[in-house]
Amino acid sequence: MAVNSPIPVAADLKPVAGIELGHAEAGVRKANRKDLLVMKLASTATVAGVFTLNRFCAAPVQVSKAHLEAARISDESAGAIRALVINTGNANAGTGDAGLAAANATCEALAELMGCDAAQILPFSTGVILEPLPVDRITAGLPQALKNLQADNWFNAAEAIMTTDTQPKAASRVVTIAGKTVTLSGISKGAGMIKPNMATMLGFLAFDAKVAQPVLEHMVKQTADKSFNCITIDGDTSTNDSFMLIATGAGTLEVNSIDTPEYAELAAAVTALSQHLAQAIIRDGEGATKFITVTVEDGKDVEECRKIAYSIGHSPLVKTAFFASDPNLGRILAAIGYAGVNDLDVSKLDLYLDDVLVAKSGGRNPAYQEADGQRVMKQSEITVRVKLGRGNAAATIWTCDLSHEYVTINADYRS
Amino acid sequence: MAVNSPIPVAADLKPVAGIELGHAEAGVRKANRKDLLVMKLASTATVAGVFTLNRFCAAPVQVSKAHLEAARISDESAGAIRALVINTGNANAGTGDAGLAAANATCEALAELMGCDAAQILPFSTGVILEPLPVDRITAGLPQALKNLQADNWFNAAEAIMTTDTQPKAASRVVTIAGKTVTLSGISKGAGMIKPNMATMLGFLAFDAKVAQPVLEHMVKQTADKSFNCITIDGDTSTNDSFMLIATGAGTLEVNSIDTPEYAELAAAVTALSQHLAQAIIRDGEGATKFITVTVEDGKDVEECRKIAYSIGHSPLVKTAFFASDPNLGRILAAIGYAGVNDLDVSKLDLYLDDVLVAKSGGRNPAYQEADGQRVMKQSEITVRVKLGRGNAAATIWTCDLSHEYVTINADYRS
Repeated sequence: MAVNSPIPVAADLKPVAGIELGHAEAGVRKANRKDLLVMKLASTATVAGVFTLNRFCAAPVQVSKAHLEAARISDESAGAIRALVINTGNANAGTGDAGLAAANATCEALAELMGCDAAQILPFSTGVILEPLPVDRITAGLPQALKNLQADNWFNAAEAIMTTDTQPKAASRVVTIAGKTVTLSGISKGAGMIKPNMATMLGFLAFDAKVAQPVLEHMVKQTADKSFNCITIDGDTSTNDSFMLIATGAGTLEVNSIDTPEYAELAAAVTALSQHLAQAIIRDGEGATKFITVTVEDGKDVEECRKIAYSIGHSPLVKTAFFASDPNLGRILAAIGYAGVNDLDVSKLDLYLDDVLVAKSGGRNPAYQEADGQRVMKQSEITVRVKLGRGNAAATIWTCDLSHEYVTINADYRS
Repeated sequence: MAVNSPIPVAADLKPVAGIELGHAEAGVRKANRKDLLVMKLASTATVAGVFTLNRFCAAPVQVSKAHLEAARISDESAGAIRALVINTGNANAGTGDAGLAAANATCEALAELMGCDAAQILPFSTGVILEPLPVDRITAGLPQALKNLQADNWFNAAEAIMTTDTQPKAASRVVTIAGKTVTLSGISKGAGMIKPNMATMLGFLAFDAKVAQPVLEHMVKQTADKSFNCITIDGDTSTNDSFMLIATGAGTLEVNSIDTPEYAELAAAVTALSQHLAQAIIRDGEGATKFITVTVEDGKDVEECRKIAYSIGHSPLVKTAFFASDPNLGRILAAIGYAGVNDLDVSKLDLYLDDVLVAKSGGRNPAYQEADGQRVMKQSEITVRVKLGRGNAAATIWTCDLSHEYVTINADYRS
């Protein structure tokens, strides 16, 4: 059960003009489950993305990056990418040249069915690493996916990209910018191997404004840094993380510069929706029973604030204490202390658990009562706030606890 | 149950001339358990240590460092330190000025009983962080500890420093160097919050050679880097890590320079014993069911080899796969890929599980059979070997798996 994260209602997910989604049951790893998704784009669409920095980045990531780069430098980037194809059940990572050939074969098969070039397709995969991609099953499933193409298909699309997720992650927003209506819809998946570095294990967000390619590229990086790059479940950065922003261009709003109020408003809407999708991944993190916000304030720079926030968010001891609702909060101090900020003066540091001041000037707050810590630890949503007392920078990340269920899921994942 | 680590036999632990050990039940946290230890040193002893780099380093660590530094620069370092006093049940960390006062009060009480200066005592604590040290109970227990002082008391000493350890960790060696017999005995504790950075959560090793202070300091750093600094259970660097080397000077061997064959032989014996004690901590890691050696070879430098080894050793996904005996080995590639070695060319990388070549040139070895991986994964001791193909450096660390029991222990530790 995800933490305070109801399953999205299909009727609440809005079609975005200029994009159709078609799912299929291709039997990539298991039969009778949606495991293939095609997202078909209008010829007006621009696409930008960020990808994992894992050195073992998957074959489809390599191919998508190359195709996006070719689209980016082409004379007309709008329409250069015509479809995205996503399979679950196999990550096509650690698969060497055979993996690249399989990713390319997937693109070629879809391109032939759609009457476009293979370079106009972006492939994505998620699932088990180090196993050969059953490319024949995927290409055999493509006609079914194309037959299912509909604008109003975001719920099935969210289901089609799930792996150990317990529920689909999708959301929509409708905003009015400069008097023009923009509809945004997005889907994501996560569950485990989640500590995105540049992007997350598959997030796709589309809206129907028209956005120039360099502007969209700026937006996708900015958005990722405020959403998917702020979450961690287990500190494992996947080989397949990808976050794609799709501006279908089918609506009336046009954004051609980042120095406009329209850009700022659109970017704010995209960021809000991305944060929702990123947080949904944490709420449905493998075995999660609590949703934890870690905020580090008054740091010298953002980097040190993030270092400390991740150190807390990754500590198995902190995470098991949250699972147990045990205010064993010295573990948080230990995690701060080993975060690698070597000139940190702990005598200036305060630690809050929600509104409770636990540690003051580096030591236990004399007024702190264990009952107060206990009260907050029992909540399903908790904010850890660290004040470093050495500057004006701040950073926030979102994480979850470490439960028996995480071990069970990951000791059983393949079997 | 610790992994292939029988409980030491008390009769196998050798007295070391020049050191006596006395334990007590002081009731620091719980009644009726050995939780206080005094190690009394001959006036010929030199002492050197390494301590945690955690910025929240505990009050006793700060006091021990100061007392050691004073001893180091004194006219005659031999005999400058007369005793070590160790309590479990409370870490005296995150306790601010009150914590420092408590650590000093412990030293003063023991000094008065022994007729020496407080600065000649080194205090150590381990247990829960952020709770006031019950210093009165500790000082009240000191007379009992002094009454119990015996040279042949290493087994009780090992028991007296246990926290969540399931068994005491102790070992002895007798070596002959330059025709002279040297006896070495050591104890350690660990169990959780184990990723020592400079040292570990309490390791003490004594031998009866006479070693000059600067030589002993060189030896303790060299030894820590090859033993306690090569282990990790959960990546959590404790606030209290301390590893102390004690040369009692009561034997016949004298070592006054690191450029002698005697130094090399003694250092080798100390390192071997330290590795045994460090590995014993991993074998008895919280919830451990497997003992894993991670070796990274053919790297550009030791630092990158260690980065990759720790990335593998800390990955919850890799650790749960070991627990499940599931050869889901793509998780190891993912951990290598996100280790932060940004110019790593994965196409040159090979991965072995014991003798099985799993990945070759960055992709699945075509000859690899899952049955071979499965065979190795079922073992209680497994070596992961990564060949980077880019240099001559290498590093080895030791770690364990992540089991349900780890979560249980750490969700229950304080309650």
